[in-house]
Amino acid sequence: MRRLTTVLTIGAASLLAAPSASATTREYWVAAVPVTFNIVPNGRDAIMGMEYTPADTVFGTTVYRRYTRNWGKPQANVPSGSGNSDLMPGPLIKARVGDKLRVHFKNLDTAFNRPHSMHFHGVEYKPSSDGSYVPGYSGRDGDVKPGQTWTYKLTAGKDSAGAWPYHDHGPAMHESIEGGMFGMLSILGRREKAPDREYVVIFSPMGKFQAIDGRAFVGNTPVFKSRVGELVQWDVMAMGSEHHTFHVHGHRWRGPDGVPVDTVTVGPAESLRVRWRERDPGTWLYHCHVETHMEAGMIGTYQVKR
Amino acid sequence: MRRLTTVLTIGAASLLAAPSASATTREYWVAAVPVTFNIVPNGRDAIMGMEYTPADTVFGTTVYRRYTRNWGKPQANVPSGSGNSDLMPGPLIKARVGDKLRVHFKNLDTAFNRPHSMHFHGVEYKPSSDGSYVPGYSGRDGDVKPGQTWTYKLTAGKDSAGAWPYHDHGPAMHESIEGGMFGMLSILGRREKAPDREYVVIFSPMGKFQAIDGRAFVGNTPVFKSRVGELVQWDVMAMGSEHHTFHVHGHRWRGPDGVPVDTVTVGPAESLRVRWRERDPGTWLYHCHVETHMEAGMIGTYQVKR
Amino acid sequence: MRRLTTVLTIGAASLLAAPSASATTREYWVAAVPVTFNIVPNGRDAIMGMEYTPADTVFGTTVYRRYTRNWGKPQANVPSGSGNSDLMPGPLIKARVGDKLRVHFKNLDTAFNRPHSMHFHGVEYKPSSDGSYVPGYSGRDGDVKPGQTWTYKLTAGKDSAGAWPYHDHGPAMHESIEGGMFGMLSILGRREKAPDREYVVIFSPMGKFQAIDGRAFVGNTPVFKSRVGELVQWDVMAMGSEHHTFHVHGHRWRGPDGVPVDTVTVGPAESLRVRWRERDPGTWLYHCHVETHMEAGMIGTYQVKR
Repeated sequence: MRRLTTVLTIGAASLLAAPSASATTREYWVAAVPVTFNIVPNGRDAIMGMEYTPADTVFGTTVYRRYTRNWGKPQANVPSGSGNSDLMPGPLIKARVGDKLRVHFKNLDTAFNRPHSMHFHGVEYKPSSDGSYVPGYSGRDGDVKPGQTWTYKLTAGKDSAGAWPYHDHGPAMHESIEGGMFGMLSILGRREKAPDREYVVIFSPMGKFQAIDGRAFVGNTPVFKSRVGELVQWDVMAMGSEHHTFHVHGHRWRGPDGVPVDTVTVGPAESLRVRWRERDPGTWLYHCHVETHMEAGMIGTYQVKR
Repeated sequence: MRRLTTVLTIGAASLLAAPSASATTREYWVAAVPVTFNIVPNGRDAIMGMEYTPADTVFGTTVYRRYTRNWGKPQANVPSGSGNSDLMPGPLIKARVGDKLRVHFKNLDTAFNRPHSMHFHGVEYKPSSDGSYVPGYSGRDGDVKPGQTWTYKLTAGKDSAGAWPYHDHGPAMHESIEGGMFGMLSILGRREKAPDREYVVIFSPMGKFQAIDGRAFVGNTPVFKSRVGELVQWDVMAMGSEHHTFHVHGHRWRGPDGVPVDTVTVGPAESLRVRWRERDPGTWLYHCHVETHMEAGMIGTYQVKR
Repeated sequence: MRRLTTVLTIGAASLLAAPSASATTREYWVAAVPVTFNIVPNGRDAIMGMEYTPADTVFGTTVYRRYTRNWGKPQANVPSGSGNSDLMPGPLIKARVGDKLRVHFKNLDTAFNRPHSMHFHGVEYKPSSDGSYVPGYSGRDGDVKPGQTWTYKLTAGKDSAGAWPYHDHGPAMHESIEGGMFGMLSILGRREKAPDREYVVIFSPMGKFQAIDGRAFVGNTPVFKSRVGELVQWDVMAMGSEHHTFHVHGHRWRGPDGVPVDTVTVGPAESLRVRWRERDPGTWLYHCHVETHMEAGMIGTYQVKR
């Protein structure tokens, strides 16, 4: 596995823009690892007053996990305090337009012994980094067997700014996605301001539950936190076979077409980025507005302090 | 219950715009009332030639109903001749950007004896006017018990122009929404022209039927009427657990992104406002284009006279 | 059946635009014909390694078929090499904004002996060309019985540029749409550049399969082909009762709101047009990203040569 550290400098700062960030090569080390996962750690649906036992909520699965260089040690997928759990979704992969990404993937799925892969949306790559399995066309990128590795070579191009899915697209794709093998890329424009807070919201069914980032019901789903005045960013997407609607209470935002909204459809692998400067203190609900999804756990809280 | 009548004057008329409308406080008096409702009053699916008996189509439920001041007398939810029934959806709540709204809500649901609430999309409010029930966080606004009242204090802010849902978000939310406890807010920009005709279209499942404003099949769903030359406005949204597509025959419109469309996806609690200057006389169908929804009643007629 | 050949000249070329195309009247001759159709001609799901027998995949149905003038001889619906089959979807009906269209339809469905019609989205027409069946309102346009004909008179108006559905809207609409009676209109702006390649992608369920243009699984669905440097255009829509998400591997495009995407929701009768200048050689997947739809066949390949 060759390590690439070329740093490209992007020149010519605009008179109107902040100084240019330098384009660079960003490396991530990720492995598919078997874990035991609990969708409802506190055993409760607080809103409906229902109780669940571990027999209902604990299952074995395979997830993407971030590692130090050369898969030295496992790391938390997300920074402490982000609201997300440290196992699901996979690591948030960050870049800026103009950057190169090298995602080094190793299949450590010794429990299920399935081949896996990573398929990335939004970024530019050659077919050998596509990560999808099609007999006769695809190579090892789409069929990384247990013990093997593959490096996906990606570029954040001019049309890559935004929040994008990645997920397993190997021979066991359908089981993997139901089991949580997905995560997001977050790509900023070349001179775009980074948010003060960034929240990852992935809607997916998990067995009889409807999960956000692998967790169901208020008290289990991520608790996202901010303060008045901060720039907050929501990276939202869906995986699986159902369409959802993303809603945040007490807030609204202008879509890219300029129209104010507070609820938007998100279908499988569709993704969107929502930003606002926070000004509304309180504890608010965020949820999928599909009734049966809310009832099955797709709801959480967002806490804004003064 | 304090009555607020402060009138705020918004100054500085633009050289290009019509004279400024004055911002004001608008009051609505609404109650949750038990009713007996018939989804298919004429007992027929005219297109497929099917007959239904009241045993199939009549049910008891709770709806939002408009009242005179201090819940003196019940009123029709919508003006006579609007095409909508007088019981479902709830009253169309109107404002302009800059206005304050006071929605005084009383739970008169003595039949089912359930707590209820009102949760509003699109407008600005403090957590105490959120109207959603979360044990440990929420107050009486999300849990108005039979006989009790609550006043929701809302502001039509700069990002509130549009057509928005409101609905029960109390402990019995899921039953209430299936039973028809929903309605719309219609908020005009500060100097925006009011339409000549305004139609409310809410897609929701009701038992085995797929309803528009609580009614199923041509002849039961609203008959919307206009004349050539009028500015017509459709306020469209969905409630429940399914995605829909809104289509009007013989017409098309430009979305806010400038692209002409005649069919658009509307998921649960998503909403949109469609406007055009009418120029096509005739009797036209409007419907959800999901085949199984059309078959189950989600279709009506729009009549344009010269 | 009167033949209209009036040619209208649209004047006043803009200083900035290419020379004006002349508006004209375009005629199409289409019939509803009974056929025997095979959803999975090669009998295989290559990705999952499943085999199917003709008993699973062959069925009798009725489709739209293009004919020479006066229904003289049947023609292939699409040019050879387009990637689409010659039976499903119906002929791609092309025009430019400003054109008139005369679609002469004959019902030759002697096998099922059902009435049929054509209902067009996106274009302007009078109620007598609407093609939908509503007892009491509609005329013969919505109920063309076997052996009968009807001419639909359509205009590509200023809001008609784009890719649009057409489909049966007669008394047997629901069976017809499940059986494949649908196609697309492709309307260019008055001076818009025609693409070098145009691909029609229609998502629809067919029995237990999920089809693209009536075919399921890689090797049966259309193989779309292009070369680096070509302007390619995807005309995408859905028919039936489900929502989909259209995704192409290794590519992304800017929506009309300027935001880059590579996956978008398409609900029943919703349609969109995606264009890009090709620059990424390789064999790529295109598919609906709803997992259960991919598994049931809604996936194909796109081949780009240098």
